[in-house]
Formats: sequence, C-alpha cells, structure tokens
Amino acid sequence: MIVNNSLDEIKKRENSFKIIRNIVENKGRDSLFDLTGLSGDFIASDNDLNLLETYVGPAIFEEQLQKEGINHMGGEKILPLNRTSSGILATILSLVNEGETVVHYLAKLPAHPSIPRSCEIVGGNYEEYDVFEKFYIPDNTSLVVITGSTMDHQVIDEDEFKEIINMAHEKNIPVLVDDASGARLRTVIFNQQKACDLGADIVITSTDKLMPGPRGGLMAGKEKYLDQIKVKANQFGLEAQPPSILAMVNGLKNFKQDNLLKSYERKHEFLELLKNNFDMFELTPTGVMVEAKKLALSVNDNDLSDNDVAFIFSMILLKDAGIITIPAVSMPGASPTIRFDLSTNDAFKLDLIDLNQIIIDAFEKLNNVVLDVDKSCEIVFN
Amino acid sequence: MIVNNSLDEIKKRENSFKIIRNIVENKGRDSLFDLTGLSGDFIASDNDLNLLETYVGPAIFEEQLQKEGINHMGGEKILPLNRTSSGILATILSLVNEGETVVHYLAKLPAHPSIPRSCEIVGGNYEEYDVFEKFYIPDNTSLVVITGSTMDHQVIDEDEFKEIINMAHEKNIPVLVDDASGARLRTVIFNQQKACDLGADIVITSTDKLMPGPRGGLMAGKEKYLDQIKVKANQFGLEAQPPSILAMVNGLKNFKQDNLLKSYERKHEFLELLKNNFDMFELTPTGVMVEAKKLALSVNDNDLSDNDVAFIFSMILLKDAGIITIPAVSMPGASPTIRFDLSTNDAFKLDLIDLNQIIIDAFEKLNNVVLDVDKSCEIVFN
Repeated sequence: MIVNNSLDEIKKRENSFKIIRNIVENKGRDSLFDLTGLSGDFIASDNDLNLLETYVGPAIFEEQLQKEGINHMGGEKILPLNRTSSGILATILSLVNEGETVVHYLAKLPAHPSIPRSCEIVGGNYEEYDVFEKFYIPDNTSLVVITGSTMDHQVIDEDEFKEIINMAHEKNIPVLVDDASGARLRTVIFNQQKACDLGADIVITSTDKLMPGPRGGLMAGKEKYLDQIKVKANQFGLEAQPPSILAMVNGLKNFKQDNLLKSYERKHEFLELLKNNFDMFELTPTGVMVEAKKLALSVNDNDLSDNDVAFIFSMILLKDAGIITIPAVSMPGASPTIRFDLSTNDAFKLDLIDLNQIIIDAFEKLNNVVLDVDKSCEIVFN
Repeated sequence: MIVNNSLDEIKKRENSFKIIRNIVENKGRDSLFDLTGLSGDFIASDNDLNLLETYVGPAIFEEQLQKEGINHMGGEKILPLNRTSSGILATILSLVNEGETVVHYLAKLPAHPSIPRSCEIVGGNYEEYDVFEKFYIPDNTSLVVITGSTMDHQVIDEDEFKEIINMAHEKNIPVLVDDASGARLRTVIFNQQKACDLGADIVITSTDKLMPGPRGGLMAGKEKYLDQIKVKANQFGLEAQPPSILAMVNGLKNFKQDNLLKSYERKHEFLELLKNNFDMFELTPTGVMVEAKKLALSVNDNDLSDNDVAFIFSMILLKDAGIITIPAVSMPGASPTIRFDLSTNDAFKLDLIDLNQIIIDAFEKLNNVVLDVDKSCEIVFN
C-alpha cells in the first residue's frame, strides 16, 4: 500500500499539480488534455471583472444567478456554495441534530464521502442503500438524501426517484438531492425531469461537472429550507465567493447540451477500439471507464492495493501524455475509477485512435511499475 | 427589536445588495463609497484568466501563492481558504475533539462568532478572556486562539501576545492566530512582528481586509499543522477556489502600506470635524467609528435595540449617500459598530468635509426614523 490515508491523497494531488504546472510552463496548455469531466471554466467579460469587489460583486451577480439557476435547476430560490461538499455540510448542519438519522439512496455504492462525514460532524446516524427494495426510512429520520448520479456516473431510475420522494414526504421529511453531475446527465442523456420538478426540497449540482462553470455548488429548492441553509453557510464560510458566482452565471449561460450528446455517440466508437487490447473498460454516460479493481486484476501480481494501481495508472497518463483523469487530482475519498470523459472541450481535440495508443503505452508501463514498490511511490509522490 | 436573529441579518444583507445593485445600475459605480475596509479587489491579467480551470488553475496559482503568502505572513507553508471563518472551522475540526477546550484571548470582547460556533460543532468547550491577568489555560486544552485585531480594530499588546504563545507552548498546545485585519494593522501601523515570527503555529488573515485581494482566508504556519488542516478543508469544501487564489496572489503583490499610513494621519482631521456635532465617535487605527451602544444613546428615546439603531443608521447612509459600512452588508453575528475606514480606495475619493455633512444628514434622519418602528423596519428590510 502506498496511498494509505487522506494526507497521502493530498500529497499525490500536490504532485499532480507540480506535473501540470511543468507541462503548462514548458510545453504549453495545449499539451494537457483534461478528461475528468470536471474541467470547468471561468468565463467573464472585462465589465464583469470590474465589479468583482467584496460587497458590490455579490449584489450584482447573485441576482443574475437567481434567474439562470432557476432556469437550469427549477425550484423557488438559488444559493451558490463554495463546493457541493460544503453545501451538503451546510444542509446537514441546518437540518440534522445529534442522534437523528440521515438515510441515503443511490444507484450504486459507494456514496460520496461528504455525506457520511457531515453526518458524523453533527453526531447523526447515517444509513445508505443501493437496493430500492431494501430502502427504509426509520422514525427518527430528519433528512433523506438521494444521489442523482454517482461519482462513476451510475444514474438513478426515475420511478425509484419519485417513489423515495413520496416516501419521505409522507413522513414530512425533507429530501436533499446530490445531483452533482446528475442535473445534466439525468436530464440531457436520460431525459429525466429536474429534481426540483420531481418534488425534491433541496437540490445541489456541481457547476464544473459537464458544464463550463467554476468548481462550486449550485443549490436550488424551497425558499424556507434555502434561507436556513444560507444562515449556516454564511456563519461558517461555506458560500461561493463573487468570482465563482460570476463564473457560475456565465457557465450556465454557456451550457450547451451538444457536447454531452456528441460524447454519447463517440463513446461507443472508443470502446470498440479499446476492446482490441483490453476487456476491463466499460461505458459511462459520456465516455468510458475502468474500475480500480478491474484494472488491478489486469496487471501483474503485486503488493499494491487496487486504489494504488489506479493512482499509478492515472499518474503515468498525466506524466507521459498530459491526460488528466480524476484519480491524479482528486480530493481525498473520491472514486479511484479512471474515467475518460469524452464530453470535455479537450476530449474533442484528441483523436480517439491516438488516445487508444496512449492508453496502451501507459498500461504497458504500469504493468512493469507495479512490480517495484519504490518506483510506484516515486511516480505517485515525486 | 427588528433584527432578532441570523435570518433577519441575512434579509437585511439581501436588502442592502438590492440597494447597491440599484445604485450601480442607475447612477454607476462611482456613486458608491465602500468604507468597510473589506473592499477587496480582483486583479487578474487575461493570461491569468485563461488558466482558471478546475485542475489547471490551482496547479499554477497555489505555487505562486506559496511564495507571496510566506513573504506577507512568514511561516513554512500557505493554505488558501474560502473564508477566514471556514479556515477557523477547518482548524478546529482538525485539532479539537469532543470535550476538549479552546481558550481564546483578544484585546476586547466580543469575539468573532466563528470561533465559539466552530467549537460548538465539535462539542468542545470554549473560554475567552480580554483581561491578560485573568488568562488561564486549563489542562484539557487542545488549542489556544489569539485574535491579533478585533472586528472593531482593537489591537493586542505585543508583549501579551508573546507571553500567551509561551504559556501555550510550555504545555505543548498549538496556537492559532486570527489575524484577519491584524496581519496588516499590527505590522504596518503598530510596528509589531508577523504572528508566525512571534512563534504562532497557525495564522490566518482575510485577504480582503485592508489589502486589495478577494474575500478569502490566507493561512500560514507550520507544515505539520497545515497539512492536517488541508485534509479537513478539502473534505468539506472549505478551501479557496482557483479564481480567489489567483486574486490573492495579485492582491498580495499589489498590497502597499501607503494607504494604511495615509489614513492613519487623515483620521485625526476627520474626528475633529465630527466633534463639532457629535461626541459619540472615536478613533480606530485607520478611521473613526461609533459603537452601536453610543449611537443608540445619542438618538431620541425609542423601542429599538442598540443593534437595530446601528443597522438603521448604516442603511440610511447606504440608501441616501451610497456609503457602505459593515452593519448594512455584514454576515450574521458581525460587529454592529459603524466604522468609517479611511484606508479604502473609495475613501480617498471623498472629501472629509462632504463626508462629515453626509453623516450629519443621516443622523438627523435616523433621529426621526427611530420613533417609528414601521418606518424602521421598512428601511432595514425593504
């Protein structure tokens, strides 16, 4: 095992940043290909930028965000957060007391760690289900959480979605939807309704996931809950700052469904190419992925964990070819699945035959590196 | 009482944002005068802006921030946070367990609410002192907090500062310094040393306070603590995002001591003018202020709280003259003191004789409004 805890994950992330910096400085931004699907963007006019002051900025941009946000998400009111994780923390701080329960339903475990961690902070109980038939709401529940689309882009069934909202509302329990990428995946690719329109009380999406906004969380929902959550967010510094709010407005204005729809077609072509050499890859809604476990089973026997093998593969792809995938740059506890998202701007600059060759070469290198723990450590941390 | 809780404070802030928006849209930015001393700024070149993507931005700007941040703050390492409050939360989440104690020393109570609130979240005990002779560190203490400069700009004595750090270190307890505005006030105006140089383990400053940076928290200190705090910050979404990090770098590069030093001279002239009509004002390091209590004692008898009177005065100044002071726009629990900071860019655009007349007119209006509760509510909330 080489990546053992959150601190190791941070060190790994810092090393990736160093590599990214070197590539930008020595070869230029064009030699990097961000296939995370979290590429985000920061779109701003000179006039926008002139207004970015502490109290003037939010006055202007929060108002614009109300309009664009409701257009994208539905609901009565919008609240911009620093990150989706900080929005989940603010919600649980507002609605869950010590000893109360949060029940979470998602298409496939594991859950995003911010939900159980936030429950732990308030001393609440946390239960999670990925089998609809087993889903159950205990009596002392104060919040039901539904994940629209998991970290690996597994999307919830819309009928189950509606049924769980009904079950919660019969008990007068509010529903929070973590629709990080789901707010776009579910609606554009799977033709599902907006979570607010399905009856959810509080919905949060990540403005950098599958849309050209900044890293940040956009919350929509019922005013009475959002007002409460805003108080906690402001008390603890969890809200989005003016530059992010401005970029959220412009990200929403510039979101186009086309890239998502095009990637949906292109992924099949890419999987066929990969199948000539590998059987470990599978489709996601907007690309292909390989789970850490399947990747680890495909390489030589070694002393590393499945996650370690995924981190090494992700770092080789970054170092050798400038391909950014999530495990190289993720926050602690994120999924180690290596996902090649074909909906990003950078993905459209890559020929799929070239990308296939990059993956073949990186895998060959990985297959040697895993035999040598020192070498593996060096690749992840230095 | 018209402003009774955090939710009322949020509504008051939303109303102020509406007024600011109207002034910017109808009269232009030049008709607003931000005298909060929290004006901040967002300085960025086109080249900077092109790099503002989720994983590319932090790779570039976090590295630059290490250099500029250590130059400004000292210490071994820098960690950028979404706000000073979120940095305090991350620190207490990292270092304080349930049942342990946090002891806080500051020049004058009340403390910034983020410190006791963060203690409450982890189930820790919180004790605070503003009399040095009474300061005491109980046995189960896991963190000592020192405030460099209070919300009303009361600055700690440097000998007491050193002594408290020594007392904590004798017991092997780390010291967090909340140097929100103090990192500049203490060093530039009072010739004190940087908190890290005085031996503090963790120091945080607000990059929008008395410097041209964005709203955000810049943490400096010992690597072993900052690495731990970074883990918590990333887990809960408390870290600064790339646009803010970029603006922190440029804010630090553009920080000049001159405005602070000039305001230090100008404030005496201003207080003399105010004394012709009022005896409620007093000096701050970079301007003048009136406490809510003294303001309330100066107006006609009424049914409002001291804080209400301060909020109304601040709203009148904003509506009638475009003068932004903290009580109009502050987050819940901030100080209700009305402070006119003469070190802001906007302050240098105002003639002090004109500003004196604005205050005379606003006070006359306030003196009538306080007699009418409905009218008072309307001014604060609509």
